[in-house]
Amino acid sequence: MSELTFSVNAHSENPTKTVINARGFELIVDEPQELGGTNAGLNPVEVVLAAFSGCLNVMSHVVAREMNFELRGVKINLSGVLDPARFTGAETTGRAGYKQINVEIIPDTDVDDATLQKWLQTIESRCPVSDNLTNPTPVHLTIVN
Amino acid sequence: MSELTFSVNAHSENPTKTVINARGFELIVDEPQELGGTNAGLNPVEVVLAAFSGCLNVMSHVVAREMNFELRGVKINLSGVLDPARFTGAETTGRAGYKQINVEIIPDTDVDDATLQKWLQTIESRCPVSDNLTNPTPVHLTIVN
Repeated sequence: MSELTFSVNAHSENPTKTVINARGFELIVDEPQELGGTNAGLNPVEVVLAAFSGCLNVMSHVVAREMNFELRGVKINLSGVLDPARFTGAETTGRAGYKQINVEIIPDTDVDDATLQKWLQTIESRCPVSDNLTNPTPVHLTIVN
Repeated sequence: MSELTFSVNAHSENPTKTVINARGFELIVDEPQELGGTNAGLNPVEVVLAAFSGCLNVMSHVVAREMNFELRGVKINLSGVLDPARFTGAETTGRAGYKQINVEIIPDTDVDDATLQKWLQTIESRCPVSDNLTNPTPVHLTIVN
């Protein structure tokens, strides 16, 4: 398979509410009221966790199939901690985003723990979103008038 | 403001379709049919771009307010390129995720280009999602039985 390009188009409906369109789907991202938003959807950093969960689900099943064990499903709980100092413009040397992301995967399967540990390592090494979070990704931002 | 924790809970509805819940919101992530999915929503790597756009919208407006210029809105076009070799299990030394993400921001404003360049630099340095993509983020993945 050759390289794949993924694209989305977004616009602000207000200063915190973003409407994203891609392939006929629409997604709303907003901030909760306590962060100054209009609370019309998950906020950007929650959507990062959502993306990661989607990727882990896909990879969970791909790798289980390759390893020839039955995976009836997964539950995934994700959380991340960040310091809002930089975001809010305070003087800080800390980073803007998540300092750490914690993920619990609860597989519905009968295989043994050793198999599951190998499964998890393979998932982690092949999940695109995991790669983009744990390794630096070049971002080119440009203004178009 | 003290540290903030964000959490989402996800489960597989099928091997590619993930249902994510957080704060009463539900988000569906899936793969398109050509990637083996049931096409019920944006796919995980598109959702990464959506998260980024939401963060850039918020920061665009926060920073414009701080810089005292009127920003009537933004449009944001995002794309990323990845090689599916690793994802599909082929032998490769390439990375699993986006090799690069390209973002065009189209601001609806009357300020000059020099102001906009300063605005863009500030957005980039304070956007949490930008930080998590451009810098390594520790991820702790555990299996819970």
